[in-house]
Amino acid sequence: MRKRIITISREFASGGHTIAKMVADRLGVAFYDNKLITEVAKSSGLSEDFIKEHEEYASHSNSFLFQLAMSTAGTLGYPSVYQRLYEAQTHVIEDIADKEPCVIVGRCADYILRDRADCLHVFIHADMDHRVAHILEHYGQTEKTPEQRLKDKDNRRRNYYRFHTDREWGVCTNYHMALDSGLLGEELCAQLIIRAIEDTAKKS
Amino acid sequence: MRKRIITISREFASGGHTIAKMVADRLGVAFYDNKLITEVAKSSGLSEDFIKEHEEYASHSNSFLFQLAMSTAGTLGYPSVYQRLYEAQTHVIEDIADKEPCVIVGRCADYILRDRADCLHVFIHADMDHRVAHILEHYGQTEKTPEQRLKDKDNRRRNYYRFHTDREWGVCTNYHMALDSGLLGEELCAQLIIRAIEDTAKKS
Repeated sequence: MRKRIITISREFASGGHTIAKMVADRLGVAFYDNKLITEVAKSSGLSEDFIKEHEEYASHSNSFLFQLAMSTAGTLGYPSVYQRLYEAQTHVIEDIADKEPCVIVGRCADYILRDRADCLHVFIHADMDHRVAHILEHYGQTEKTPEQRLKDKDNRRRNYYRFHTDREWGVCTNYHMALDSGLLGEELCAQLIIRAIEDTAKKS
Repeated sequence: MRKRIITISREFASGGHTIAKMVADRLGVAFYDNKLITEVAKSSGLSEDFIKEHEEYASHSNSFLFQLAMSTAGTLGYPSVYQRLYEAQTHVIEDIADKEPCVIVGRCADYILRDRADCLHVFIHADMDHRVAHILEHYGQTEKTPEQRLKDKDNRRRNYYRFHTDREWGVCTNYHMALDSGLLGEELCAQLIIRAIEDTAKKS
């Protein structure tokens, strides 16, 4: 079946956002990354700042502490806000996919849209050296080493994904293509994704 | 750096062997799948039948039973034969990689050659429907359902990989490309791999 929707999951600082934007621009379809935050804010009534902080990341990089925080939050009545965010995000992603061909970055979109036959699911990753260079170029130095920051981000994303899905983050079988942007480069990654889209369209 | 060696890891019945052969033929390089068994037999003195049975599969699909079997075998002096097989396989793969450009299928080659900069590591997988059709076409019916056979093979390969490496099998970050041959088709998978080889060669 023709693939109208491309979901791009990515390791932090792997260039996944840039690749996704290149693909959307060249295919002439809508691009949802930060724009999704605005849509979720409208839908949920939550602030964009709150959404930015919690939309893709667990509150703890430690899986046990995150699980504990979520269960404790449950007894205090907090989960409603996290649950509301995730549910709003789910509905927004489903609506977007119904509405128009597009590229959606992150937010468990690969999982949320897993049963649709018109999606191509992609994962972008890169080795530590490339990601360190990327984080320093785009976000500069902080007190933590770049390696610590990347590890923390990966763990939070992994815990978030595991909590909301029945899957492990970054496992090949969840995606139709997984590409190492460190080795292949952003340009080639974009070209390979477009090639897959065009080729599967010919077969449909 | 120019990629001289391509390792192709694959789920059973995903068409990974066929894709690997197509890539080797089109690039005009050596192809190591069954040929590797002959080389390992020469190197280790073990029979080809024994190697075929144990070279990529744990003796149990259950991880705990396999670990138990290996530790029990240790006390009985058995590990030497499994260890000899794995060590012979490792040396053969390292020798091949030193000797000539080639495509190597399975056998933890992605892990054994992980520190070489001249390798492209690929993982091929496919959804259950495609693999069931493949197993029935190539191996026919048996008493077990195709789904049971595939699950058993996957588990044995996963346990074997986990035992001999410090990694999990089928995790995106172990490979430069992971492709769903069920969706993309064998022909396109081969083309995408060749495209990656050609493009990285231009950059080197």
